[in-house]
Amino acid sequence: MAEIKYEVVEHIGVLSESAKGWKKELNLISWNGNAPKYDIREWAPNREKMGKGVTLSEEEFETLKGFLNQL
Amino acid sequence: MAEIKYEVVEHIGVLSESAKGWKKELNLISWNGNAPKYDIREWAPNREKMGKGVTLSEEEFETLKGFLNQL
Repeated sequence: MAEIKYEVVEHIGVLSESAKGWKKELNLISWNGNAPKYDIREWAPNREKMGKGVTLSEEEFETLKGFLNQL
Repeated sequence: MAEIKYEVVEHIGVLSESAKGWKKELNLISWNGNAPKYDIREWAPNREKMGKGVTLSEEEFETLKGFLNQL
């Protein structure tokens, strides 16, 4: 299997934690050495496994922010 | 395969659109008849297919909003 390299550039915050200790987090992550993107994703304890999530570019992130503040 | 039933209760907005016409959207979606949750996900044109994404409860959504406004 291909390897995905990533680096958590900035841990912004935890949105929630499940009974099994998985955390839904907002981070700034660099994937395969590329420019960091905002990332909303579930992580196992100690970030040993990653779950499903979405990455957002700076532009998508700003658009999301605009929608959130209208709600 | 098991079937997933969902209903887009409210279309809040489009975060971006890819060259192939997939859109990253913020929606309020009811999954399997449950209470609607906020959902950030990619969709094929006319929502014919869904891509990866995250669902956020009201509480997670409010927490996210708080983080975004601090950035």
